[in-house]
Amino acid sequence: MSSGHHVAAWRYPDANAEGGLDFNHFRQIAQAAERGKFDTIFFADGVSVRDRGQDKDIISRAGHVAHFEPITLLSALSVVTEHIGLIATVSTTYNETYHLARKFASLDYLSGGRAGWNLVTSATDSEAKNFNLDKHPDHTPRYQRAREFVDVVKGLWDSWEDDAFIRDKESGIFFDPDKFHVPNHKGEYFSVRGPLNVARPIQGYPVIVQAGSSEDGKNLAAETAEVIFTAHQTLADAKTFYADVKERAAKIGRNPDHIKIMPGIFPVIGRTEEEAQEKFQKLQDGIDPKVGLALLGSMLGNVDLSGYPLDEPLPDLPETELHQSRQDLLIRLARRENLTIRQLYQWIAGARGHYQLVGTPEQIADHLEEWFVNDAADGFNIMPPYLPSGLEEFVDLVIPILQERGLFRTEYEGKTLRENLGLPRPTNQFVVEKELVAA
Amino acid sequence: MSSGHHVAAWRYPDANAEGGLDFNHFRQIAQAAERGKFDTIFFADGVSVRDRGQDKDIISRAGHVAHFEPITLLSALSVVTEHIGLIATVSTTYNETYHLARKFASLDYLSGGRAGWNLVTSATDSEAKNFNLDKHPDHTPRYQRAREFVDVVKGLWDSWEDDAFIRDKESGIFFDPDKFHVPNHKGEYFSVRGPLNVARPIQGYPVIVQAGSSEDGKNLAAETAEVIFTAHQTLADAKTFYADVKERAAKIGRNPDHIKIMPGIFPVIGRTEEEAQEKFQKLQDGIDPKVGLALLGSMLGNVDLSGYPLDEPLPDLPETELHQSRQDLLIRLARRENLTIRQLYQWIAGARGHYQLVGTPEQIADHLEEWFVNDAADGFNIMPPYLPSGLEEFVDLVIPILQERGLFRTEYEGKTLRENLGLPRPTNQFVVEKELVAA
Repeated sequence: MSSGHHVAAWRYPDANAEGGLDFNHFRQIAQAAERGKFDTIFFADGVSVRDRGQDKDIISRAGHVAHFEPITLLSALSVVTEHIGLIATVSTTYNETYHLARKFASLDYLSGGRAGWNLVTSATDSEAKNFNLDKHPDHTPRYQRAREFVDVVKGLWDSWEDDAFIRDKESGIFFDPDKFHVPNHKGEYFSVRGPLNVARPIQGYPVIVQAGSSEDGKNLAAETAEVIFTAHQTLADAKTFYADVKERAAKIGRNPDHIKIMPGIFPVIGRTEEEAQEKFQKLQDGIDPKVGLALLGSMLGNVDLSGYPLDEPLPDLPETELHQSRQDLLIRLARRENLTIRQLYQWIAGARGHYQLVGTPEQIADHLEEWFVNDAADGFNIMPPYLPSGLEEFVDLVIPILQERGLFRTEYEGKTLRENLGLPRPTNQFVVEKELVAA
Repeated sequence: MSSGHHVAAWRYPDANAEGGLDFNHFRQIAQAAERGKFDTIFFADGVSVRDRGQDKDIISRAGHVAHFEPITLLSALSVVTEHIGLIATVSTTYNETYHLARKFASLDYLSGGRAGWNLVTSATDSEAKNFNLDKHPDHTPRYQRAREFVDVVKGLWDSWEDDAFIRDKESGIFFDPDKFHVPNHKGEYFSVRGPLNVARPIQGYPVIVQAGSSEDGKNLAAETAEVIFTAHQTLADAKTFYADVKERAAKIGRNPDHIKIMPGIFPVIGRTEEEAQEKFQKLQDGIDPKVGLALLGSMLGNVDLSGYPLDEPLPDLPETELHQSRQDLLIRLARRENLTIRQLYQWIAGARGHYQLVGTPEQIADHLEEWFVNDAADGFNIMPPYLPSGLEEFVDLVIPILQERGLFRTEYEGKTLRENLGLPRPTNQFVVEKELVAA
């Protein structure tokens, strides 16, 4: 979300409404995050205008419709940053393995080892329709394809051993032919010979990130992810998820410390509680009722709410197949808290399921500390409500408190994203094979 | 070719053999070209290691096997340059329209309107095998797909009118819904609904470049290209090609001045003719006979020449279907000039069919002037034998002569690549439709 993570961020006075296609906006964000010693910046992404089947009038009131493609943007940002990780979201459903392996390897070289891949399988028919399909493929084949996709990409990244390139002008030998491998993958979804025409990435593999919360998603993440972005409202839920994923990873022989779990945090920061609440109210007031209703309707399973009065309780709704658990959650919330339709869409529209913290820097730091020391988080995905200043406030006001408490770094530990996250550098699978043969 | 355009460039003492994955190498190249007021930099590309079916030992002696992916590289270079165009090669055969339209639109915004797309249809089975195929698709379907591909991409680039985005915080209207269009393409090769999630590119469309020399290639270029890279050995051939393409364009109603024809030039520059010849000889001596033989063999239609003595004339060869005209040309050349096998591969390996100029800056400027004033070229694609210093020599020694003669700019004329090339900014097709309806 270029102007900020609140659904009406672009209308907030401090937000840069033109941020989506303004390189200086992102330069400012990236440099602020680096000043704050963040591990990484990360951009969510999709390959469509997410219109949710709505009419032009409603879409025209939502802000996030035109913005940079993340790999091009992060390549450019690699030049104006030195330490911070650069994580791009790319879908396995609408991409080819060779392109993806190549672009991330290239970004890893451009940035000196700071690339990360947020693996998604996409979610909407609007994306399918841009890629020769009528509707989005089902969950199961999508995850099967994703699993095979990761294997192919890792094979391509291993095409060259780390020290394959000799480049000896005298002898004329450019690389050691024994350190060159042709993956030659043939599987159910992909037939990809390789080798990749980029050397093995500086990090071995760029860091692999995921955000799955379904069963398939959690299993794929436990198998392949090194960072997990997640969304929880309460410490108890976050702890349960944390323990669950770490256990799944351990069960299949992975070191649980090598999966970093980072819940999303939506911080609205004021010098006083009152100021924070005022800011939050201003954000909420910016939600156009048409946008809010459409968002709520889509989260309730494509229900049309336009006929109901905004300031009365949510009516009884027909059950739908789609997203039943989320629908259920929202309806229970509305009943329990006695929320009107307006209150309910406002509740969703801000943090959209992430942990919403409205308060002073100390209060926010207290909450982060509580989650961090109680095994609910290894770190956090900070989602400022408006950008760039919402991030700068976090960097200038909250980070110093965390640093004083000894909870957060004051200098980067390493050169690569992998080193800063404390993740091991993966061994080349073909070297492992050679060693097995030799043993 | 990261270290230079000569096949043995990487072995040349001045060449950066590690250039392929060294951002500073490309920064130096881009900044030198911008100092020389070049219209653009441009990188050839393919989506495979071009092994020509050779064994590892031979591939390991060729230099250009691992390098940046061009769109990521150019995105990064956009940050360290201000004026120069950034042209990336991307194949229509192994890509999807939405990704391509999006990445080039994104690059156009990152660079302030300096993006160009060199459209290729790819050439090798090694690429097909990285994309779920056994062999490269035939010429005709490849060009049919390319034609439709361009139409889809232009439709996506037109999704938003130039002034669609209002971003009015007060009213909450982000864009004018009447200036938003859903291309909804359904064709033989592609079904792509759109709209694109990037605003209309700064240039309307990034500049479209091609290098086709087949009949299909020349027709596609006459229809869609704005810049054509080409290769000729003689003024007469270059003039014939120039007149042919301009005529094809005029016949289908295009202004011939809006297709810029740029033959490739391979300049080896010395302060004296002798110095230039010595440099050239040093480059030629760097060609590993195994690499030279394999290159020649592949250009003669996959002939194995490894059994023949290098310093004797080319033997009689069986005719092959593949590349018959090129094979013919080479055999006639060898017979006419009485060339040995070594001389023949050396002849190919340098400029690879482009115009080879070995001499003083004045001599090289004379040749360029001759082609330019005789309607053989609108500009040139300068392919330095070694990089980065081969380009710096051209910028420092040849460009000033061309400027003194009034043949070349001393300052950039415009802000965008399109403006510097003297190309018009295309009108949005949906605006044209609206005007037709209104008329």
